[in-house]
Amino acid sequence: MALIVQKFGGTSVATTERIKNVAKRVAKWHRGGHEVVVVVSAMAGETNRLFTLISDVTSNTRDSEIDVIASTGEQVTIGLLSLALKELDINSRSLTGWQIPVKTDRQSTKARILEIASKNILKETARGTVPIIAGFQGVDGDNRIKTLGRGGSDTSAVAIAAAVNANECQIFTDVDGVYTTDPRVVPNARLLKTITFEEMLEMASLGSKVLQLRSVEFAGKYRVKLRVLSSLTDPDYPLEYEAKSGTLITYEDDNDMEKAEVSGIAFNRNEAKVTIIGVPDKPGIAFSILDPVAAANIEVDVIVQNVGKDGTTDFSFTVPRKDLEKTLDTLKPVIRKVKAREVIGDNKICKVGLVGVGMRSHVGIASKMFKALSNANINIQMISTSEIKITVVINEDSMDAAAKVLHQTFELDK
Amino acid sequence: MALIVQKFGGTSVATTERIKNVAKRVAKWHRGGHEVVVVVSAMAGETNRLFTLISDVTSNTRDSEIDVIASTGEQVTIGLLSLALKELDINSRSLTGWQIPVKTDRQSTKARILEIASKNILKETARGTVPIIAGFQGVDGDNRIKTLGRGGSDTSAVAIAAAVNANECQIFTDVDGVYTTDPRVVPNARLLKTITFEEMLEMASLGSKVLQLRSVEFAGKYRVKLRVLSSLTDPDYPLEYEAKSGTLITYEDDNDMEKAEVSGIAFNRNEAKVTIIGVPDKPGIAFSILDPVAAANIEVDVIVQNVGKDGTTDFSFTVPRKDLEKTLDTLKPVIRKVKAREVIGDNKICKVGLVGVGMRSHVGIASKMFKALSNANINIQMISTSEIKITVVINEDSMDAAAKVLHQTFELDK
Repeated sequence: MALIVQKFGGTSVATTERIKNVAKRVAKWHRGGHEVVVVVSAMAGETNRLFTLISDVTSNTRDSEIDVIASTGEQVTIGLLSLALKELDINSRSLTGWQIPVKTDRQSTKARILEIASKNILKETARGTVPIIAGFQGVDGDNRIKTLGRGGSDTSAVAIAAAVNANECQIFTDVDGVYTTDPRVVPNARLLKTITFEEMLEMASLGSKVLQLRSVEFAGKYRVKLRVLSSLTDPDYPLEYEAKSGTLITYEDDNDMEKAEVSGIAFNRNEAKVTIIGVPDKPGIAFSILDPVAAANIEVDVIVQNVGKDGTTDFSFTVPRKDLEKTLDTLKPVIRKVKAREVIGDNKICKVGLVGVGMRSHVGIASKMFKALSNANINIQMISTSEIKITVVINEDSMDAAAKVLHQTFELDK
Repeated sequence: MALIVQKFGGTSVATTERIKNVAKRVAKWHRGGHEVVVVVSAMAGETNRLFTLISDVTSNTRDSEIDVIASTGEQVTIGLLSLALKELDINSRSLTGWQIPVKTDRQSTKARILEIASKNILKETARGTVPIIAGFQGVDGDNRIKTLGRGGSDTSAVAIAAAVNANECQIFTDVDGVYTTDPRVVPNARLLKTITFEEMLEMASLGSKVLQLRSVEFAGKYRVKLRVLSSLTDPDYPLEYEAKSGTLITYEDDNDMEKAEVSGIAFNRNEAKVTIIGVPDKPGIAFSILDPVAAANIEVDVIVQNVGKDGTTDFSFTVPRKDLEKTLDTLKPVIRKVKAREVIGDNKICKVGLVGVGMRSHVGIASKMFKALSNANINIQMISTSEIKITVVINEDSMDAAAKVLHQTFELDK
């Protein structure tokens, strides 16, 4: 018997029919002798509906009332799922963020979890009740409702799994698990049975949508055993098979088997590139350029400074594509101040990253990657490397070709 | 300066445009120097949407999870209205039932309010903030969300007005106030400037939809000054006029002006008549018939027992029309047991009631009423009287004619 946290996202609870299917799946685990704690998102579309109402009334995006409104989506789901479980003769009880409580800081719409009163969750499991918990929400020290920001239900699930010391945290999604790359782009992409926490983190940071980045960070911090698996299979799929399905996120010292050089390829086409040309090459220049961008609340990702000539250098970085115009506007006065020649933007780029803990012990991965791209006639605009990841920025049109050639080069389909 | 509780129902907050109008109206009162406490319902249609989801999952109608789901409708409205007020530079804060808290008993979907921590409401008004409170909801001793049943937002508003000792509780609706009768039936129906609490109670019990019966009872118990007024007027309508608009519900000792004989005519066509023919006329017969009906959770209203002949009597009563079949099924075995001849149902009836505290001191109202109906060729099937009300049951087809002739007879348009 194990204590399992199961999280079901918006598409898994999109309709009352799907909620009944989730109830069957939870009932199967409960009847299999496990203590199950369930965390759910709002029904797909509901959060968007609520945010449309909000934007009709205000352009403010951080008001504390937004949390009050947005948190109702999950509250509806916990009630419905609990009713559906009772219909299957399983004792069940819904719990909102404030009822547990899940204590957060005071940041509206982007709160962080501070503490979870796990005893109120374990009290329910101890008496054979399945607690159904609203993800994405908590309550601050002033008794005000707070939400964790979009996708925060994954973080809720992982934090709850850590708090109750669960044997496993199962994230049910509309995909089978984590693939070597996006199967829609590379048809022979392969499902990974396991992936290390650090690889998952790099994949998530590169735009793999399977898990929210913050939830992976949280899992790593508390070493929560995380499994990504499908909620679209038949809910009567035998328990012993379901328990081994999907992808398990492991911690490196969990096993000592030899690592593949590369585990996966992730990509992201939601970024744009900004280049400042002819910057006088002197100390403090990176700060002068990036500080105003950070102050405008724009997230900067890959940063590259090229070696210059004539005492000037070219300085490039990527920003979310939606923020490109704002970034260029922010930088115009800066250009004059630092006496750079000009600033240009390009929103037809994409980032492609190779991820693998095996890179640490294998040399030549980078050159193998660059050679493969060169053979495929794909031009690399920027390069950035970390211990277990190599990221290149290329033209957006070459993305599919790059993913395919790299998948083949590193034999990810084997 | 006064402390005013303002309640806005579902149609008044049906869209974000209407919510902005409500915000303008509240802002006007706030800027006029009043302390305003606002209570709101769910946006029109929202509660029905939620109950459709619930009925997809369960046929249970009293499960505690239903409260969890249903209470989200009001939570969305308080957030949106609070945001709209902030856009008008008015400090505002939403409050759910559990945040105040509004303590209730443990009856799911039909909870009763036990206690309201008014200090948490007055703390907000004291610092110039307009508290926006979710109607229809509270929290029980186990920290579980409870709802007051449909229409419960009126009751919330009145209970909050009593708790904070408000100078007036204003119920904004989609009508101008309380009329002598339904203006859709009698075009020259007249708006009443005042109506006594007892008359309002009788009007509500007879099916006048302006205020929910329980909220009127609550107002009477705590002598809350209640005003019914329109939310459809221009929100910039001058404060001094709006303050006197609509209908004020008064308590008899509030003034000593002479009362009209009749204040209004209410009617209800949601009832059906049940008649048991040929009941042996002996003690205990009413109990034998009505006890099984009550046990089946059917509400019985007008009860009439006719004088019989041959040692038998005819026994009639009204029930909600939707419960007619169930009542007849329930009574079939009873008929055999009490040795009555037969039971018949009629769902083509309506109740018409004359209401007025002046009846107490004026004789002959009943005979004047019966004469008028007789002159109009309207047959009376049942009669029931109370101190300030005379109710007759007539054929449904005669309802409009009866309302018109009675309105004229008692000069209610004057």
